[in-house]
Amino acid sequence: MTDEERNEMVVTPWEVRGKVDYERLIREFGTQPLTDDLLRKLSKHTGKLHLQLQRGLFFSHRDLDIVLDQYEKGTKFVLYTGRGPSGPVHIGHLVPWIFTKHLQEKFDTRLYFQMTDDEKFVVDDELSLKETARYGYENALDLIALGFEPEKTFIIYDVRDIDLLYDIALEVAKRITYSTAKATFGFQDDTNLGWIFWPSIQAVPCFIHKKLTGENVPALIPAAIDQDPYWRITRDIAQKLGYYKPAQIHCRFLPGLGIGGKMSASEPETSIFTIDKPEVVKKKIWNAFTGGRPSKAEQKKMGADPDICTVYQYFVYLFEEDDQKLAEREKRCRSGEVMCGECKIELAERVNRFLAEHQRKRENAKKIVEKFHIKR
Amino acid sequence: MTDEERNEMVVTPWEVRGKVDYERLIREFGTQPLTDDLLRKLSKHTGKLHLQLQRGLFFSHRDLDIVLDQYEKGTKFVLYTGRGPSGPVHIGHLVPWIFTKHLQEKFDTRLYFQMTDDEKFVVDDELSLKETARYGYENALDLIALGFEPEKTFIIYDVRDIDLLYDIALEVAKRITYSTAKATFGFQDDTNLGWIFWPSIQAVPCFIHKKLTGENVPALIPAAIDQDPYWRITRDIAQKLGYYKPAQIHCRFLPGLGIGGKMSASEPETSIFTIDKPEVVKKKIWNAFTGGRPSKAEQKKMGADPDICTVYQYFVYLFEEDDQKLAEREKRCRSGEVMCGECKIELAERVNRFLAEHQRKRENAKKIVEKFHIKR
Repeated sequence: MTDEERNEMVVTPWEVRGKVDYERLIREFGTQPLTDDLLRKLSKHTGKLHLQLQRGLFFSHRDLDIVLDQYEKGTKFVLYTGRGPSGPVHIGHLVPWIFTKHLQEKFDTRLYFQMTDDEKFVVDDELSLKETARYGYENALDLIALGFEPEKTFIIYDVRDIDLLYDIALEVAKRITYSTAKATFGFQDDTNLGWIFWPSIQAVPCFIHKKLTGENVPALIPAAIDQDPYWRITRDIAQKLGYYKPAQIHCRFLPGLGIGGKMSASEPETSIFTIDKPEVVKKKIWNAFTGGRPSKAEQKKMGADPDICTVYQYFVYLFEEDDQKLAEREKRCRSGEVMCGECKIELAERVNRFLAEHQRKRENAKKIVEKFHIKR
Repeated sequence: MTDEERNEMVVTPWEVRGKVDYERLIREFGTQPLTDDLLRKLSKHTGKLHLQLQRGLFFSHRDLDIVLDQYEKGTKFVLYTGRGPSGPVHIGHLVPWIFTKHLQEKFDTRLYFQMTDDEKFVVDDELSLKETARYGYENALDLIALGFEPEKTFIIYDVRDIDLLYDIALEVAKRITYSTAKATFGFQDDTNLGWIFWPSIQAVPCFIHKKLTGENVPALIPAAIDQDPYWRITRDIAQKLGYYKPAQIHCRFLPGLGIGGKMSASEPETSIFTIDKPEVVKKKIWNAFTGGRPSKAEQKKMGADPDICTVYQYFVYLFEEDDQKLAEREKRCRSGEVMCGECKIELAERVNRFLAEHQRKRENAKKIVEKFHIKR
């Protein structure tokens, strides 16, 4: 791969690489920016805006305005997000889940969480169904550790819950041609039949609430923007099937600790897994890519660049809720008052404090994981 | 459609038209003819050959010889056949089922019968899942009416039993590319995603016995030859998944009562449904296409042609077991001794006698239909 190819922006449900231009994604995907007006409308229901909205992690949407309008007129909605269980969860995965939990609390609504063990199996040559099922269980522990309420949170494990999904998936599949799927997902002649069918399964949680409860309400999907193609085709057929179009609120990718790209489990050295031990976390953060200068002297003189610093990003999106303290950190960085090592040590401490608590709750989740199963 | 196009042979799982050349199908599909040697080998286990073998209704196979060899060495097999529940069952459908029951009795083996309510839904624009499920139930009554034993006969209703099928279907789907499916089934850009995935579901009953019992044995599939493409791709991947290749024994299409083509529920005037009333049967057979002459005088003089007569075919394959009487009927037809009206009246009587009994058993099947469900 040439440098040019490496830097070229590629954002699909299966691959994110290059420098991501979020403005361009809004244009190319045809989504809407999250405007201040819309955020104000949202805050009427949530009170103070969630950190991830304040800091612009969520930046784009489809029909969020319509969902809020309808909510104000008395039509509730459900939340839907998910996870492809192909490995352990890293803290980048937790980010939209934390925001989802905020929405669930503020709007007192159900969450359907899809664990796509079937997708990861058909997409990844190396993974067996046994492995994706095991990761499904492990990943569910991380979700539950965030404090979701079992009464309102329904984890759909595709393979084990297929009896609930299949009829709706068939209704969807019947209305999507190969030509549409090919154009949307880039399927090719060597794509396997499971992969081709799978978008029909990903559509189901948008609609399953009606089957389970009799109540027809829209789904609002907080997720990274690479998943948007799924919802585009789902939106095209929703009304033909008698459902609302699913609405979305899109987040950016939390960067890994290396140069560029999102945090990805396939690059373990630059990803902080929720089960990492403190020493491992310290080491990974110590090796993180920052905006620092080659020498201490230079940095003191010229300052560093937080805009490209992965360590700073983690303070922004997860580990520094205090705006003033964040602004001070930025100022001290740019002025050369603080060296990168100091920030790294502080971040590692906060991450490890968070993970100690998370790991305790994660252990506890093993006792209640079945409460999140969908009852027959 | 021109006459030439109408007469052109087309044999796919979704369409059979034109004059079917069975020798050519054996060559083009790459199957083996059922030789006298092989029939003798079979009769070592079954005793007297079944009528449908004697009369050549079953004419082709894949690996039947291997299955029999293994059987003789102590490896059993299971039977698998099925039905696309898109309408009521006609007597053409019963033909291979009757033969399947014969095999089940002689080899004392399990039958997996797939009711493909999902396929008929994705393939037919007009059908709802509710309708294909209802036909699935109705068609199962016809199967059960033939006297299959519930202890050894397992009806798989795809939608209701998807929890048992999905993991195996995914294993299959992962190993079939779009390119292979396109070449095998003629999928096109406007084919829907459900239809494209479906061959993976049709493969599952070849392999499900191992999941249900732990025992790995081959499946032998008695079915009309138009279903062969499914087994071709299933055979290609069976061993990769640790199963035997499914073996097949192929039958011809029972003709409808009109000119050319197989009996088809989409042409109700030329199909005898199992729930038809006696007067309806009489009328349909009275209007049947025969090999008769335009006038009585001509027929007396020149005789008629049983080779193209639909009425005669029904005597051959279902309603005249006595070879000598069949030979007499043929002779009297060719010599002009018998008029078509006489044969029609006799056939209608036999069909109605058969249907009266079938309908009684079919009514009774309603009480035991659940015994044929797969237990969890």
